Amino acid sequence: MAEEIESLEKVLEEHIPQEKLSEVKRILFGSRALDLELPSEVTDLASKHDFEVKAFKMGAADEQLRPPRIVRVGLVQNKIVLPTSAPIQEQRDALHQRIGQIVEAAYHANVNIICFQETWTIPFAFCTREKLPWCEMAESAEDGPTVVLCQEWAKKYNMVIISPILERDSSRGDILQNTAVVISNTGNVLGKSSKNHIPRVGDFNESTYYIEGNTGHRVFETQFGRIAINICYGRHHPLNWHMFGMNGAEIVFNPSATVGALSEPMWPIEARNAAIANTYFTAAINRVGTEHFDHEFTSGDGKPAHKDFGHFYGSSYMAAPDGSRTPGLSRTRDGLLVTEMNLNLIRQIKDKWCFQMTGRYEMYAKELTEAASPGFKPNIIKEN
Amino acid sequence: MAEEIESLEKVLEEHIPQEKLSEVKRILFGSRALDLELPSEVTDLASKHDFEVKAFKMGAADEQLRPPRIVRVGLVQNKIVLPTSAPIQEQRDALHQRIGQIVEAAYHANVNIICFQETWTIPFAFCTREKLPWCEMAESAEDGPTVVLCQEWAKKYNMVIISPILERDSSRGDILQNTAVVISNTGNVLGKSSKNHIPRVGDFNESTYYIEGNTGHRVFETQFGRIAINICYGRHHPLNWHMFGMNGAEIVFNPSATVGALSEPMWPIEARNAAIANTYFTAAINRVGTEHFDHEFTSGDGKPAHKDFGHFYGSSYMAAPDGSRTPGLSRTRDGLLVTEMNLNLIRQIKDKWCFQMTGRYEMYAKELTEAASPGFKPNIIKEN
Repeated sequence: MAEEIESLEKVLEEHIPQEKLSEVKRILFGSRALDLELPSEVTDLASKHDFEVKAFKMGAADEQLRPPRIVRVGLVQNKIVLPTSAPIQEQRDALHQRIGQIVEAAYHANVNIICFQETWTIPFAFCTREKLPWCEMAESAEDGPTVVLCQEWAKKYNMVIISPILERDSSRGDILQNTAVVISNTGNVLGKSSKNHIPRVGDFNESTYYIEGNTGHRVFETQFGRIAINICYGRHHPLNWHMFGMNGAEIVFNPSATVGALSEPMWPIEARNAAIANTYFTAAINRVGTEHFDHEFTSGDGKPAHKDFGHFYGSSYMAAPDGSRTPGLSRTRDGLLVTEMNLNLIRQIKDKWCFQMTGRYEMYAKELTEAASPGFKPNIIKEN
Repeated sequence: MAEEIESLEKVLEEHIPQEKLSEVKRILFGSRALDLELPSEVTDLASKHDFEVKAFKMGAADEQLRPPRIVRVGLVQNKIVLPTSAPIQEQRDALHQRIGQIVEAAYHANVNIICFQETWTIPFAFCTREKLPWCEMAESAEDGPTVVLCQEWAKKYNMVIISPILERDSSRGDILQNTAVVISNTGNVLGKSSKNHIPRVGDFNESTYYIEGNTGHRVFETQFGRIAINICYGRHHPLNWHMFGMNGAEIVFNPSATVGALSEPMWPIEARNAAIANTYFTAAINRVGTEHFDHEFTSGDGKPAHKDFGHFYGSSYMAAPDGSRTPGLSRTRDGLLVTEMNLNLIRQIKDKWCFQMTGRYEMYAKELTEAASPGFKPNIIKEN
């Protein structure tokens, strides 16, 4: 198998001549994201612990009546640490330790809000369709070991933490959910938000494990801005993004786990489109690496059984409401993406592009209600 | 001012080494669009009349119970022909003649459905905010001169034609609308579809000229597939794309007119996202060139008055429901993009990705109805 290329951005920078590179980048990425310099503690930690750090800032125009609303967001992508055959307690501990290293670097980068990848405390074992030991790794979203650890970090580093886990909800008959826990920088659990749409695609047999969330489209007001979480497959559903926007979100995080052959050409499109259409910032986070399992499994594609289902291609990025985006993290390495943004850009772009004002939502509420009703007849015009 | 680069694709092909180029293209464009060979009549006409032709095919898996549903779609992008100061009758006649040359080539390329750019019979004069002579160029969507000409072409070439015009609707108090007329390959007018969302952005002062459409989200069933039209600024509204999908559209056309400084980084994102999210094909069409006006105008950006408002960057493309897309037409030249597709891909991707099945539309109908009501309170969670 060919070696994975490290990143699209790196290929462009290596080969396209300077005089054309800036125009190519403008067309591909917009021009708002500028390089941001970080303290040497950050790069030292990254080098010591072998992960990538990239940092950008996205400004906004000065206003007379509002001061700038500057916030730094950190996105974390990582491989699993131990083999999937290790005792699950050790697997989780190793992940806790690994992410602790990256969170410390984020602290030195003055990150205010950090988000980890989907179900970050477990390997992405849904392809196996086996229940043990993976279901054992689910945790309480109120006081599970991962929540407790994140509370410590949040308080120590004065950081809002979004921690996407596989949740065991004992208040609802011990069911499983795919849930992001939001921990305030005070260390308090602010609440949780569960995945609204579940894939039934290839190896992503996730409806085998958990059910659609019942937390709707809540938005969390933090000291650093109003945030919401649209987990993984929910990024394919524009209505999902839309309702987070109508509830006032300023930054919507999309912690994900997805592989190259399946989704890579869609990856740069969907979270970025959501930032444009809903006039907020979005954060697309994908895990990295290839995960091997002890027992073989099939993928519903007519091919022989195998023990891994492909390369998680990382490429985490942030998108701004004006359609620009940051370059992505690597396709192959653990990484921390730091983005400083001025949230005033949101209202400035709303006033410029007027998508909310021209949205005709009453019309769509009516049309969608009709279309979702049994007996709906599509509006199709035929030649007589 | 620097010269416009001809196209992103050309820069990539010129500079990125072969061994990396296919991987770069896969990440950027997906891998479904393959080169399609055209008869020499087409390339001869393109060379004679100085326009670009590109052609691709997008296949689908063979099925046992359905034969392939092959259709060829043509997209046309063009500059205006005469100066905007020429008599308007001559300006329109020149555009009719120019597009006639491209339609003839499309016929030789076996195109079944063709779509022209937004308000293709006029310069994009909305920046001027002047009423005469531009409003004079509006036409009936039933029997205006452009409709009559398109009916001739449709019948002669056995081609469905989508003709976006500035419409004068005498049945509604002589109002103006931004309307696409759909002409069947029999030569009959199948109907019309008007722009649902109107920009109030910078030079696109279009609400000065016409009002939101009242034709909803109708879909036209033609001999070659079910089509719909989402005009220009409607591409920023995911609900708009969504309702065309719920009404059964298989190909949604987005005839547009937009300039580089404003929207170019958004352009590859929005129509392509719509193809993914709604599991249909989309066609993004933009005009080309810089249009100069006799009288100066301002652009609401604090800058001095001027006589043009920037470069329409073409770059028309087609996107498929699996997230892949064709390369774009040029940023600088008139062009015809021919894409052959197998519409069976749509149901195959619906069955693979299951977006419709997992869409939870009843929930969104309820949430959207609440959010669109006066007195709606966003669902915001705060720390106690």
